[in-house]
Amino acid sequence: MEKARHVEDVHRNSKVDQEPFFPLVIIQFASSTKQAAITWLIAKLQASRNEGGAELTVQTMVMPHSDETNKEDDNSMETMLYIGASTNRLLLAAEMMEMKKLHADGRMREVVIHDLQSFQGSDDLSTFFTKGEKQKILLHEIEGVRAEPLDTNIPGYEQIRLYPGKSILKKYLSRGLVLQFYPLHDEEEIKRLGDEWYQYKKVFSEQPLDKIRNYFGEKIAIYFAFLGIYTVALFPPALIGIIYLVTFWKSVYREAIFAVFNLIWSTLLLEAWKRYSSELSYKWGTLNSSSASKIDEPRADYSGDLGRNPVTGNPEPVYPKWKRSCRFYLVSVPIISICLIVAFIVMLLYFWMQAWADSVYHSSGERWLYLTILYTPTIVYSVAIFIMNTVYRMIAKELNDFENHRLESSHENHFILKLVLFDFVNCFMSLFYVAFYLQDRTLLRSHLACLLITSQLIGQVQEAMVPYFFFKRRETQLAHAMKKSENLKQLDDRAEIDKAIQKQAVLEGTMSVYEGTMDDYLELFLQFGYVFLFSSAFPLAALWALLNNVTEIRTDAFKMCRVYQRPFCESASNIGAWQVAFEVIGLISVITNTALIGMDPTVQKLLPSDMSAVNIVLIFVIVEHAVLAIKGAVAYFIPDMPKWVQIELAREDYQSKQALQKERLSAANRKRQELHEISRPRMSSRSTEI
Amino acid sequence: MEKARHVEDVHRNSKVDQEPFFPLVIIQFASSTKQAAITWLIAKLQASRNEGGAELTVQTMVMPHSDETNKEDDNSMETMLYIGASTNRLLLAAEMMEMKKLHADGRMREVVIHDLQSFQGSDDLSTFFTKGEKQKILLHEIEGVRAEPLDTNIPGYEQIRLYPGKSILKKYLSRGLVLQFYPLHDEEEIKRLGDEWYQYKKVFSEQPLDKIRNYFGEKIAIYFAFLGIYTVALFPPALIGIIYLVTFWKSVYREAIFAVFNLIWSTLLLEAWKRYSSELSYKWGTLNSSSASKIDEPRADYSGDLGRNPVTGNPEPVYPKWKRSCRFYLVSVPIISICLIVAFIVMLLYFWMQAWADSVYHSSGERWLYLTILYTPTIVYSVAIFIMNTVYRMIAKELNDFENHRLESSHENHFILKLVLFDFVNCFMSLFYVAFYLQDRTLLRSHLACLLITSQLIGQVQEAMVPYFFFKRRETQLAHAMKKSENLKQLDDRAEIDKAIQKQAVLEGTMSVYEGTMDDYLELFLQFGYVFLFSSAFPLAALWALLNNVTEIRTDAFKMCRVYQRPFCESASNIGAWQVAFEVIGLISVITNTALIGMDPTVQKLLPSDMSAVNIVLIFVIVEHAVLAIKGAVAYFIPDMPKWVQIELAREDYQSKQALQKERLSAANRKRQELHEISRPRMSSRSTEI
Repeated sequence: MEKARHVEDVHRNSKVDQEPFFPLVIIQFASSTKQAAITWLIAKLQASRNEGGAELTVQTMVMPHSDETNKEDDNSMETMLYIGASTNRLLLAAEMMEMKKLHADGRMREVVIHDLQSFQGSDDLSTFFTKGEKQKILLHEIEGVRAEPLDTNIPGYEQIRLYPGKSILKKYLSRGLVLQFYPLHDEEEIKRLGDEWYQYKKVFSEQPLDKIRNYFGEKIAIYFAFLGIYTVALFPPALIGIIYLVTFWKSVYREAIFAVFNLIWSTLLLEAWKRYSSELSYKWGTLNSSSASKIDEPRADYSGDLGRNPVTGNPEPVYPKWKRSCRFYLVSVPIISICLIVAFIVMLLYFWMQAWADSVYHSSGERWLYLTILYTPTIVYSVAIFIMNTVYRMIAKELNDFENHRLESSHENHFILKLVLFDFVNCFMSLFYVAFYLQDRTLLRSHLACLLITSQLIGQVQEAMVPYFFFKRRETQLAHAMKKSENLKQLDDRAEIDKAIQKQAVLEGTMSVYEGTMDDYLELFLQFGYVFLFSSAFPLAALWALLNNVTEIRTDAFKMCRVYQRPFCESASNIGAWQVAFEVIGLISVITNTALIGMDPTVQKLLPSDMSAVNIVLIFVIVEHAVLAIKGAVAYFIPDMPKWVQIELAREDYQSKQALQKERLSAANRKRQELHEISRPRMSSRSTEI
Repeated sequence: MEKARHVEDVHRNSKVDQEPFFPLVIIQFASSTKQAAITWLIAKLQASRNEGGAELTVQTMVMPHSDETNKEDDNSMETMLYIGASTNRLLLAAEMMEMKKLHADGRMREVVIHDLQSFQGSDDLSTFFTKGEKQKILLHEIEGVRAEPLDTNIPGYEQIRLYPGKSILKKYLSRGLVLQFYPLHDEEEIKRLGDEWYQYKKVFSEQPLDKIRNYFGEKIAIYFAFLGIYTVALFPPALIGIIYLVTFWKSVYREAIFAVFNLIWSTLLLEAWKRYSSELSYKWGTLNSSSASKIDEPRADYSGDLGRNPVTGNPEPVYPKWKRSCRFYLVSVPIISICLIVAFIVMLLYFWMQAWADSVYHSSGERWLYLTILYTPTIVYSVAIFIMNTVYRMIAKELNDFENHRLESSHENHFILKLVLFDFVNCFMSLFYVAFYLQDRTLLRSHLACLLITSQLIGQVQEAMVPYFFFKRRETQLAHAMKKSENLKQLDDRAEIDKAIQKQAVLEGTMSVYEGTMDDYLELFLQFGYVFLFSSAFPLAALWALLNNVTEIRTDAFKMCRVYQRPFCESASNIGAWQVAFEVIGLISVITNTALIGMDPTVQKLLPSDMSAVNIVLIFVIVEHAVLAIKGAVAYFIPDMPKWVQIELAREDYQSKQALQKERLSAANRKRQELHEISRPRMSSRSTEI
């Protein structure tokens, strides 16, 4: 109530109507969507917050439907909503979202409207928030428009039921009534950012992380920071790889030294990253926001009976934990297990086919024609891996949605777990098979090189060629979009929208959508595995990975800026479950590398010749345990945050406590003063106060 | 300043002088301490806080010196200070210390003087704090009296220099000017507690943890809670041990089943304890107080140049980290390494002597007289272990003090690390030697049984007999103390002290001092190791441990209540570094048990006979890694806090945020109101406010 009154205050005190309208996000309806549904959504977006609306500014545009098959004889129209918000609406929402901005004291603090003047950049409130922040706020507000008890279905669609508390926009999206929901790029800003980020002369300079964060949000900035750190960390092992390649130094210690170096290096890399990411997220104000995540709102897709949040007491959908556990253990686990087994069997089939092809080839006298037979298994297996990956991905997504996680973070973590498990089997299991079952070092090296290089080539093609293709296609799209945008008609002309922005919106509607950092991390994860799991077998892996990543950073950057629709900013304070995934690979690589070295006959010759095979194995087991123990100790004793971040956090804590105490004291004094004034005649009664 | 003014307010508003004086803690000076030093300390304790004093109520008593050698011809007197504080002084200090009490809403909240009426039990302020809490407050305040810049030395002692910021009382204690500083028992309370805790009919009932916590503080209560949980958890393995003993079931799976059960059981025990301790500490208001520990005050013994606390900005001693690292790596690490090596060599000597004694015994025709030679090495080794333990403990304490840790917690953790490392070598290394070097299962069993049972016997003797001895000695002491207390003379008779309490203080001054939970945990740690490290070799270990602990709980309880001086209450939210120590033992026990089972010839016979020795080893290595992975996954996926505690914490967080926001809003409204009233004539100026 207090809040609501305050909203009105803010509105009354400002000049809402004088503000020029500037659209920030676009909602594009399907051409088949009924007018009633469109009108209803617009009304919801414009309605005041007290009525469950979002209180936003919406401009509606219509244009002829663009489906080329129907040509001009189809009279259906496409509707696009251009959505913006007044500065005060944004401020209010930012306060409710507990968004952080740079305070005058140099710290990130939660925006508080009545203390706005102490925030940096608050002189001009129209630019106080970056465009990215404004769009993030709008995303939160638009997705936060939820069905009220009386909203039983979407108008015009009897069959699309709504349940109180469900996000309305999400329903429109999942039922295909809304085709797209995207924020607009900022042409000037993106040009400046691109110049600093992916120009060729900048290949060896640092990435402009702060600017990336401002434009794309913390989550994407953290990905690029990790990619950067990881790429730099690849230099030393790549250098060693080159030295080994050039010098032809043949020593039994060669591989062992490299493996030990890599083990230490990967541990230090992951520890250093933890510290660095806590520095970044402290600077960006996202550190420790995880503690607030417990009172986070549920995902917009989360479904359940309407209940109450145990923390805030607010109404929200509630889904019992045992049901989720049932779905997880009785449905997801069995299906995933089957997928893993299938992948494993396909791998066995591949090796079996390969052995058969080898024998046919050799028994045929190694004739040229039979080469086709020799290479068929590999080709078939590559295709099979690709197909399995694609199919599994769809299955994993379905299962994950089915599990109905409440928080975005646990939804994402479970998805990562599913992907990592499968990709581990699908991509690494064949290496384990070659290394420890076939025990064929030469095959291991060639197989590893083959897997690493092909996966990187495919990645590069996907990431460089596909955008090129898109770019080509875009030229025709551009022409088409231009033509379309000529026909744009503004339904509501209270506020005029700049023609250029109208066009921009249509054009960006044709761009492909960035699917999140998941795939990028997965690619790095596989690469990390290829480089570190069997590094003693193929020291050049780091060099290949390095070459790949140096270009990867810049092509990824180009894609982010030029190929994709702008994504909404998301906050993040670290790489989340990926940290665990990388650390597990680090642990496993200790085992694999000690085993590889232990199995090396040249190394075994170094040991006393009267040593039994069992003792040799035991020695390597002991070494492995020692390395694991050291790794564990290093990870335990290196603090996850640099000292200065710890001190800053403690200081913030201390200062807010001090402030709170002071406020309480002055409140108490005020109270006493008031009591004093009221009860001046009977002074003695005061002694009962304490 | 604000604070200081408030103090005076509190003082003025209450009836300080009418409050009866009740002594809570005692300071006993040495008889040789010069009067100037005594007078100065008393003045400091009584001086107002603005003058750097503690503002406490102090009564001075003197009595003839009790050293029996000097008899009555020595005229020197012993001085004892009986210290108490007014209720308001206690309240104020509690607020400054952020002490938590039960709020009307059922939560533990920090005491806020102006909101006192919302705390439970605040109707009678004299009993609002328990005696234990009052003593804890006094400890904090008395130790918190620090030297001011002008205090260069202790009056009467030119050579005892003081540095600004150093705790004065600590200096008196370390220089022997103050003999003892202890709180007084509460006779009624301790009788009630004892009846519920250690009476024989209560052996199988739960411990009264809440009451223990109220009387002895969270740290001791947490120890007894852990001891209780651990003892209960020993029942199942002890039962299996009995079944094995009785049934004589001879199967090759026997040991394997038991070992696997124990591995799972120890993991679950430690995870369950983590959850249980977070429940307890949530209930007691100490959970998450660790986050505040970063702004904790330095230990009273901490020394360094006077600088500023980076968090609070207050002056305090500062000791650079690199110096501490130097001391740690250049002094502590080498000395400890030498100690470890010495312990290891002594162990080797023992086995060498034992082998020699065996051969002499056998070659002598196993004659009766030579039995003495057979048992000499074991006796010598036991004595050597005892001596090494005692010596090492002194060394470790010196080194730890020398390292000069700032926080009590890190001081303690480093001491635990030192003790655990040495005791691991001193107590467990001989078992490893027998198990894996000599590979003698029979010897391992007897050696383990011998170590476990003797260590428990020694423990029981120390803990049951020594108190008995003390009790005997106490009777003469009692008589002596009685005689002494007859001669007590109150120097300052503003407030009369009850004669019974005068006597109690003298009597408790003769009781022995409880040295903290360190030894108790160390004993449990060693026992945990004996039970779980080689459980497949000696299944009866759990039974012995169980029998020991069932009596241990009650004798420990008796000691706490009747034998020792009352300790000051200390807060704790968990068992700290001990959790890690126990978990490491859990990890190592996976390795030792798999190895033991793998080495068992009867188990090896189960495997296909054509399997090579290397493959057998590899199978067990794989099994071991699988068990470790499962253990890791279990520990990772079981949340450290029960769901309800998480929700409660989140709710607290949410509510305090809501309250803060509300307060800010109303402050803003007030401000606006004021502005409005001031600037009523020029209304338009308000639009610039936002």
